[in-house]
Amino acid sequence: MPEHNEHELDTQRDILQQYYHTVRAQSVRYCSPLEIEDYVIQTMADASPPKWHLAHTSWFFETFILQAYLDGYQRFHPDYDALFNSYYVTHGDPYPRPRRGLLSRPTVKEVMRYRIHVDTQMARLLRRADERHWRDIVRLTLLGVNHEQQHQELLLTDIKYNFYQNPMRPAYRDYQTVPSQSAQPLQWREFPGGVFDVGHNGADFAYDNEGPSHKVYINPFRLASRLVSNAEYAAFIDDGGYRQPELWYAEAWAMLNAEQWRAPLYWERQDGQWLHFTLEGMRAVEPDAPVYHVSQYEADAYARWAGKRLPSEFEWEVAAEQQEIAGNLRRDNLLRPLSAGAAADSPEAEQQDRQKQPLHQIYGDVWEWTASPYAAYPGYKPAGGSIGEYNGKFMSGQTVLRGGSFATPADHIRPSYRNFFYPKDRWQFSGIRLADEV
Amino acid sequence: MPEHNEHELDTQRDILQQYYHTVRAQSVRYCSPLEIEDYVIQTMADASPPKWHLAHTSWFFETFILQAYLDGYQRFHPDYDALFNSYYVTHGDPYPRPRRGLLSRPTVKEVMRYRIHVDTQMARLLRRADERHWRDIVRLTLLGVNHEQQHQELLLTDIKYNFYQNPMRPAYRDYQTVPSQSAQPLQWREFPGGVFDVGHNGADFAYDNEGPSHKVYINPFRLASRLVSNAEYAAFIDDGGYRQPELWYAEAWAMLNAEQWRAPLYWERQDGQWLHFTLEGMRAVEPDAPVYHVSQYEADAYARWAGKRLPSEFEWEVAAEQQEIAGNLRRDNLLRPLSAGAAADSPEAEQQDRQKQPLHQIYGDVWEWTASPYAAYPGYKPAGGSIGEYNGKFMSGQTVLRGGSFATPADHIRPSYRNFFYPKDRWQFSGIRLADEV
Amino acid sequence: MPEHNEHELDTQRDILQQYYHTVRAQSVRYCSPLEIEDYVIQTMADASPPKWHLAHTSWFFETFILQAYLDGYQRFHPDYDALFNSYYVTHGDPYPRPRRGLLSRPTVKEVMRYRIHVDTQMARLLRRADERHWRDIVRLTLLGVNHEQQHQELLLTDIKYNFYQNPMRPAYRDYQTVPSQSAQPLQWREFPGGVFDVGHNGADFAYDNEGPSHKVYINPFRLASRLVSNAEYAAFIDDGGYRQPELWYAEAWAMLNAEQWRAPLYWERQDGQWLHFTLEGMRAVEPDAPVYHVSQYEADAYARWAGKRLPSEFEWEVAAEQQEIAGNLRRDNLLRPLSAGAAADSPEAEQQDRQKQPLHQIYGDVWEWTASPYAAYPGYKPAGGSIGEYNGKFMSGQTVLRGGSFATPADHIRPSYRNFFYPKDRWQFSGIRLADEV
Amino acid sequence: MPEHNEHELDTQRDILQQYYHTVRAQSVRYCSPLEIEDYVIQTMADASPPKWHLAHTSWFFETFILQAYLDGYQRFHPDYDALFNSYYVTHGDPYPRPRRGLLSRPTVKEVMRYRIHVDTQMARLLRRADERHWRDIVRLTLLGVNHEQQHQELLLTDIKYNFYQNPMRPAYRDYQTVPSQSAQPLQWREFPGGVFDVGHNGADFAYDNEGPSHKVYINPFRLASRLVSNAEYAAFIDDGGYRQPELWYAEAWAMLNAEQWRAPLYWERQDGQWLHFTLEGMRAVEPDAPVYHVSQYEADAYARWAGKRLPSEFEWEVAAEQQEIAGNLRRDNLLRPLSAGAAADSPEAEQQDRQKQPLHQIYGDVWEWTASPYAAYPGYKPAGGSIGEYNGKFMSGQTVLRGGSFATPADHIRPSYRNFFYPKDRWQFSGIRLADEV
Repeated sequence: MPEHNEHELDTQRDILQQYYHTVRAQSVRYCSPLEIEDYVIQTMADASPPKWHLAHTSWFFETFILQAYLDGYQRFHPDYDALFNSYYVTHGDPYPRPRRGLLSRPTVKEVMRYRIHVDTQMARLLRRADERHWRDIVRLTLLGVNHEQQHQELLLTDIKYNFYQNPMRPAYRDYQTVPSQSAQPLQWREFPGGVFDVGHNGADFAYDNEGPSHKVYINPFRLASRLVSNAEYAAFIDDGGYRQPELWYAEAWAMLNAEQWRAPLYWERQDGQWLHFTLEGMRAVEPDAPVYHVSQYEADAYARWAGKRLPSEFEWEVAAEQQEIAGNLRRDNLLRPLSAGAAADSPEAEQQDRQKQPLHQIYGDVWEWTASPYAAYPGYKPAGGSIGEYNGKFMSGQTVLRGGSFATPADHIRPSYRNFFYPKDRWQFSGIRLADEV
Repeated sequence: MPEHNEHELDTQRDILQQYYHTVRAQSVRYCSPLEIEDYVIQTMADASPPKWHLAHTSWFFETFILQAYLDGYQRFHPDYDALFNSYYVTHGDPYPRPRRGLLSRPTVKEVMRYRIHVDTQMARLLRRADERHWRDIVRLTLLGVNHEQQHQELLLTDIKYNFYQNPMRPAYRDYQTVPSQSAQPLQWREFPGGVFDVGHNGADFAYDNEGPSHKVYINPFRLASRLVSNAEYAAFIDDGGYRQPELWYAEAWAMLNAEQWRAPLYWERQDGQWLHFTLEGMRAVEPDAPVYHVSQYEADAYARWAGKRLPSEFEWEVAAEQQEIAGNLRRDNLLRPLSAGAAADSPEAEQQDRQKQPLHQIYGDVWEWTASPYAAYPGYKPAGGSIGEYNGKFMSGQTVLRGGSFATPADHIRPSYRNFFYPKDRWQFSGIRLADEV
Repeated sequence: MPEHNEHELDTQRDILQQYYHTVRAQSVRYCSPLEIEDYVIQTMADASPPKWHLAHTSWFFETFILQAYLDGYQRFHPDYDALFNSYYVTHGDPYPRPRRGLLSRPTVKEVMRYRIHVDTQMARLLRRADERHWRDIVRLTLLGVNHEQQHQELLLTDIKYNFYQNPMRPAYRDYQTVPSQSAQPLQWREFPGGVFDVGHNGADFAYDNEGPSHKVYINPFRLASRLVSNAEYAAFIDDGGYRQPELWYAEAWAMLNAEQWRAPLYWERQDGQWLHFTLEGMRAVEPDAPVYHVSQYEADAYARWAGKRLPSEFEWEVAAEQQEIAGNLRRDNLLRPLSAGAAADSPEAEQQDRQKQPLHQIYGDVWEWTASPYAAYPGYKPAGGSIGEYNGKFMSGQTVLRGGSFATPADHIRPSYRNFFYPKDRWQFSGIRLADEV
Repeated sequence: MPEHNEHELDTQRDILQQYYHTVRAQSVRYCSPLEIEDYVIQTMADASPPKWHLAHTSWFFETFILQAYLDGYQRFHPDYDALFNSYYVTHGDPYPRPRRGLLSRPTVKEVMRYRIHVDTQMARLLRRADERHWRDIVRLTLLGVNHEQQHQELLLTDIKYNFYQNPMRPAYRDYQTVPSQSAQPLQWREFPGGVFDVGHNGADFAYDNEGPSHKVYINPFRLASRLVSNAEYAAFIDDGGYRQPELWYAEAWAMLNAEQWRAPLYWERQDGQWLHFTLEGMRAVEPDAPVYHVSQYEADAYARWAGKRLPSEFEWEVAAEQQEIAGNLRRDNLLRPLSAGAAADSPEAEQQDRQKQPLHQIYGDVWEWTASPYAAYPGYKPAGGSIGEYNGKFMSGQTVLRGGSFATPADHIRPSYRNFFYPKDRWQFSGIRLADEV
């Protein structure tokens, strides 16, 4: 963020205000197809109730911004501090995650009142916060807004998972974006090796886990021009891929057998046809659409079966750097605050010039599992205080995904963006892009 | 039920109709203090969501009566048959009990529509069922109504348990009946030994597990004139009762340690005072009120500590036979259909005559744990068909409770009534009456 | 035990001495076919290592007799007090039962030294204990010897279970007694109803749980003249008995499904033939021998399938009182100390006279599951001190078995003898005798 | 291995023969202090019985060499193929790891016979195998011998763990090597950044997971001149290191709380002093000796507390390449077959020249946790067939350790050697070396 005079500051206030409220409103809009009952349930520890997501994202602003910077701020409700703390153990003792679905109170109405309260106070703060704290408030508000966007995607993955547990298979009717179909033949894009700079570098917002920017050595490699399709994945299943131990890591094989995996999450075979559960209910699996709801274990086994491998996160990043941030991403809040040229502004010409090696579906559609364990970059230090728990403490045992999905806002994703889940996780919108040696 | 002519049949139709609708309406009224969110949650396998209770009791009438006796009856919804089947495995594959709280659909509104549908069809059936099936329909409708009454008490125990899991400790405001206080000094009533007839005998409605009536030999025994009070139980706690293994069965001691029991369920010590969670929120423990929410393990350990024992179910029954069915029972549906003199009609005189050995709180207030494992009476045969699963298949591992509670309808309880739960269970309204040898 | 003069006391010393050492030696002899490795393993919480049995029975004498009555007695090893305490929690904190197989030390040799030490000291004590404590010492020594006999049977059940877990299916070669075959057609013996005295009554040794003697009322009943045979049980299996929920208690059905029970423990079908694992390895199931290694759940389901029921423990006792204690029992220590006429002495004539209603296999062969939960008799009080934990604290959740097995010493069983295990347990030598109403 | 004439081949036969038998004999010698009972037990899934280790290493030669290359070879026992298969699921269905301690048979004597059988047949094969298969046999025999050496270290870690579970705390008396004490002040060695070749490169034996050799980019870094000492680690404990969530990964914090970690495995505080269990029993913790039996979670938390970090495996390797393979390593089989100059041959002069930056304890003493997840190197392909399961299938979820321990044979370790365990594992001889940025 550049130095600024008073006029600039006012402009910033306006932009941030607008950005904040646009994104916040989106969370509520995402829930509009839900019945009140749907807000309450939690069907596994990882799939939080929608009500909880709505409250927790508000708690984030209340705890890290309003309490710190708004003089005389009173918490909306004393019990909410523990109830809606997700995992910030240095801040306090969070209510246990697997028990979030055991709470009928606060009601949806009360949570909505909580949101309005926080929004009103945030509006006050953004309007009048003095210059002394302005940079910190901007930084934390951007973090909070990006955090809210992450939870918007989680809202969808969790609603989908929750609904699937119901034998009646309810549909979340109004959300229609899905992974795009692609009839393209799979081609291989070749990339030279060498030393590359990776990680986030610049004044734009990025999470702390994207830095520090640093150098890595990469061998020459090849990437598939598109994601693995449902038809290709079905061939892997038909070939007995789930019954061949040599394709699986030892812990993957144990999980597969323990959980009786036979296909991606949500897939069901009926009369020889593959159906899958979608946010609109049970649908036929489209052969040319990218496969998703696979774990990294399955992504890796598929790649091994295909005689290929998963890309490292740096191979992916080096390749993605050369691509336009475009594709099947969420397009409902396109405002990019406090930063220069947004991707969407780029003229077609420049875009084509940059895409000498066009990688279809590299942004959006579905997240792409990498081979890379989620670990700290050289020199990484988490922020001080409880906010330092945002990313750093998860840098053990998880795996990096890259590129965003159809449910990721277009203004939320970057080449350096590192999403992370356990390699066994399947309820995210996660798919597969193959890599290979040259 | 005696032989009847047409006029008699019409009268019976009217009475049964009225009885059915009175009790059914009561279930909905019990839920009226709830928010929609409260209908959804389940905080342990045993504590079903209120929504589920409302649907399951309707399923009972639909499955065992409407489908069997109403020509051309169509199920309200095909998925409900499995979803709201509790445990009738010969009827079909019930949706798993521990997962009842994972279902946001059907919504509360849809469940209410289901109830109305069933009630409308039951009204039709009761109005026009022909004589040929009338006896069976009466028998099953009485069973269904009594079943509904059982679930009304469960609604309260489950709501209480569910609410207690919420750190905000919501109150179920409108229900105010609680165990009654009693300043009476504890006295001992003596009963002679001998051979006695026990079990239900007569034309009135009773569950199959109350028969056949049979003889038992009982030694002379004594019963306490009232329930164990909170003050008495607190003395047991203060004396280290929960830390003395010699007071506990081996499996009780294991449970106590595994669950870290230190007091009855819902009791919390604050500043040296005992509070307990009630349907109206946290309240001070009343010294003279009967202790409740104890397991049979705790009841037995208390009795051992006091140098006494729990009564057998037959000692209890023999003593209770001599008492009026009166006391702190639910009084909101006092209609007793198809039976002669209801207890409430008895003139005071007769009542006093019968109570040579007055046993305070013998009916109502709280259920009384006995020492008796829940087992079949000699010659017991469960009914044929799925309805035979109602009681008989639970005659292993559980323990008999007697006498009803403040939440048991006064027209639902009898001397021969056998309630049963696992000896470890604490969320029911269960307390202690001491017995002793003469 | 009658009053006695000095000569009598010396005689008692001799008899008790001999009895003690005969039974103690038997335990070691039971282990003689074992390899050292076999003494160490424990394959489920209930199946203790042979080494542990040998040490625990010694601990019993050391703890309850030597420490209490032998002046200046020093424990053999300080750690053994906790290691070989089974469940006497008022005595100290026992080493956890499921971890007994994790101990390689003390070695078998050290355990044998422990036994010799205890035996030597017991010999000293029995020789010179003064009259003042003599009665207590006799009482406790008899208890310890009977305790040792119980563990001898457990040694066999546990070795069998442990060996069965090994895919190599080792054989415990030298023990050849098995349930006897019986080609008798099943007949029904009828018994009149009325009030009967049950429980132990007399000067002979009996466990405290067999008393006090008391009266029960029993309806007229019938008992099968012999145990259910393997052929009969196989017919139940073939008829789909394990797939019909209406035959099973709810908790039995849950267990059956959780554990995938399809036949008695140790049964395996090979090429359409039933084999079972025995102490001598895999053998063909003999059609006419009694079925064993069934749980009470299976015994009850079989009885229901056969249109019959299990006897109550009192029906069994009343019937068995009229029978000679004879049959397929262990016959290797027939000394009956300090008591008058032992059963084996009875002349044939008397025996036949008593057996107006001969019940084949009523003693010995296999333990007979009853329908009776294991509970205290009216007026039962456990002994004071830790020894009071022997029986009383298990009077919750378990079920009574009667009659002894081929592995029960003939001088150990009585009509009033109450064995008890959980209704789900199958690794004991437990079978089925049917009962019915008249 | 270079081309060779017949004479050369005979020499190779001799050397390999000698190497094989030397290492094999060592395994048995390691067990010589054990009682037979000690060979049998398994106290957690990861700590196999000594008997199993002895059999499994023999199975390895039998399965991958004798069966493949010795004409007409007959397996020693048909059941051993499954019983002693560790995890080669493409070869067959291994007996479950957590149940290895449930097997009393085969006995120790039988396992020893199995070893002799395999050794005899291996001797025959190595003596007469024809040239056509010689290279494969050499490669697999070297793998088998190195595999045996790995299990020798596991024998010690497992015996230690097993013994510690016994409250009597038996001692494995005869093994006396322990981590060395070091009074050196901790210094920092600085290393320049750049692109480096890492991984194994050369004709010597190495595991497949050490290759392919490839380039990595490393920032300038610093390494501690010695391992973290017990005194330093005790200061971390005293400072509340186990109670500060900000020092721990989220999954480490969860583990710490679930398992109640308060110090390294085997540490116990008595009268304010730290003791720890060693192979010789309970001993005082030596302040200057390196801390060990810490998980990677603890290593990482310690480093964070100290304001430092763990090295990456490549930082470690680059630094270790410059060091002599010397130090506190196992020295009992120093024969290095089929390779040129062994490290121990290097003259002192050269050694000092190479150690411009001496790193004390870099080889031997205790394994050093790195920050690096165990993953495949670029271009890694596991071998074909079941032997391909040796390393590759574990490249998910585990963490790399480097440098060997006092229990690692000096001829077994290399700069490129990658050991791997789960970051939660503590029963290995694993310690901490700090790293830092420049």
